[in-house]
Amino acid sequence: MTALFQQVTIVGVGLIGGSLGMVLKEKGLANSVVGLGRSLENLKLGVELGAIDRYERDPRLALQGTDLVVLATPIESYASHVTQWGALLEPGAIISDVGSVKGPLVEQVETLLPPEVHFVGAHPIAGKEQSGVQAGSSQLFQGSLCIVTPTDRTNAQALDRVCKLWEVVGSHTILLDPHLHDWILGAVSHFPHVVAFTLMNALGEIQQQSKEKVELLRYSGGGLRDTTRIAASSPEMWRDISLWNRENLLSMIETYERHLIQFKNLLKAKDGEGLEKVMSQARTLRGTLR
Amino acid sequence: MTALFQQVTIVGVGLIGGSLGMVLKEKGLANSVVGLGRSLENLKLGVELGAIDRYERDPRLALQGTDLVVLATPIESYASHVTQWGALLEPGAIISDVGSVKGPLVEQVETLLPPEVHFVGAHPIAGKEQSGVQAGSSQLFQGSLCIVTPTDRTNAQALDRVCKLWEVVGSHTILLDPHLHDWILGAVSHFPHVVAFTLMNALGEIQQQSKEKVELLRYSGGGLRDTTRIAASSPEMWRDISLWNRENLLSMIETYERHLIQFKNLLKAKDGEGLEKVMSQARTLRGTLR
Repeated sequence: MTALFQQVTIVGVGLIGGSLGMVLKEKGLANSVVGLGRSLENLKLGVELGAIDRYERDPRLALQGTDLVVLATPIESYASHVTQWGALLEPGAIISDVGSVKGPLVEQVETLLPPEVHFVGAHPIAGKEQSGVQAGSSQLFQGSLCIVTPTDRTNAQALDRVCKLWEVVGSHTILLDPHLHDWILGAVSHFPHVVAFTLMNALGEIQQQSKEKVELLRYSGGGLRDTTRIAASSPEMWRDISLWNRENLLSMIETYERHLIQFKNLLKAKDGEGLEKVMSQARTLRGTLR
Repeated sequence: MTALFQQVTIVGVGLIGGSLGMVLKEKGLANSVVGLGRSLENLKLGVELGAIDRYERDPRLALQGTDLVVLATPIESYASHVTQWGALLEPGAIISDVGSVKGPLVEQVETLLPPEVHFVGAHPIAGKEQSGVQAGSSQLFQGSLCIVTPTDRTNAQALDRVCKLWEVVGSHTILLDPHLHDWILGAVSHFPHVVAFTLMNALGEIQQQSKEKVELLRYSGGGLRDTTRIAASSPEMWRDISLWNRENLLSMIETYERHLIQFKNLLKAKDGEGLEKVMSQARTLRGTLR
């Protein structure tokens, strides 16, 4: 198909950035895909794996002739990136991203934008526990959801082009207010990670409590394996997500605490009927999950 | 192979009892497999599906000539069963079970045993969210772990025969003290169920809090699906397991609460280093899971 963009520069050629590059090249959505990053080794790997056509470590060279920059670096680094090279972009260029938090980050980036450069926040809901371009795939976004988060300041044409991009790579796009995005993703993704991390650490302490020094985890089955799968996710990434979505997470943790205390009190009171009721509620709600 | 038992009577022909019957018959481990239960419809289904050779609803007829009875009913019902028909068993007969809790139940059953009838507690760690004999399979126990829980009162020959049974159906057997079993399974199975039930219910309340009336769960991905899979388990069964393993669960819930509060406090304090540390601990521990 005809290219949507002259040149796309991907900042951070990891799992998501690398996979985006692979599918952009595969589908010919950009005449050229450039990788910008720090690690020479990783950028070379990105070229070998077909994630980028070429790489640069100097923003000036990486951004010359670029009409779309995709931030695929840790969300914590957005401000320093845009401050460092935003002014190098040509009028009409678009900055987008793939970050898991939107509200405060979109606000931050919008205040740093040079005139005539547009920002469109995007969050492709795709990934694995593995990270790095070596885990990348041009199929990663196929059939997944991509939430795009415009604001009053978002340029309509830029928004259209970014939505088009994600649809062509195989995602279903939905427009959401950046703060509503954070509340929703906080609930269905960030908060479950907190629950899984906490479960693993609680089991670690329970293991320590054992007088017999039993190796607890060798007795585990598929239930614990599934329940804690996401506890294997990147601590650096989830530290940043937690900090940037802090208010939502704090209130969700408190909601969880209330339900845990309710369960504990039912159990203390040996209230079988009450326990069955809350378990049935949970089971019914679980039944509505896609 | 030669039969290990003349006649095995399975009390409760559901997922586990039915699957056991299927593999007993498939491997010729019993000359006859009899189903004892209340629902005529279910018992007929058990015969159709090859889980039992015949069924009885009168214990007298179901137990005549039986040298092994397997309790595959809700753990709550053990006492009433053994009280009702224990005395009908012939000297040397064995009662075993497949229940998920052992300590208090083994003690209870042992006090109700007629002279010369032996009890051997067993817990095959196998199952699915689906229940009922229609979900049964002769392969259910293949490669799984079966924990057998002898006490000072356990007859050595009866113990050997029950272990042999589970090994021949494809399980790896481990002997554990009944109370140690409950602590271990409480940690790796029962407690994660509490965490998953609670997560679903917390999300249910968070959904209610939404002003926009967003359908939260349609934005969920594989992470939430895996984390809450076991929240689809049977409320009746997990009510009983929770009540019978109450003390262990209460102390594990309190350990979890402490770790959740620790996480909350790190987040409140915006302590990125501390958050990354607890997440890394969790990830490392998760890496040790089979």
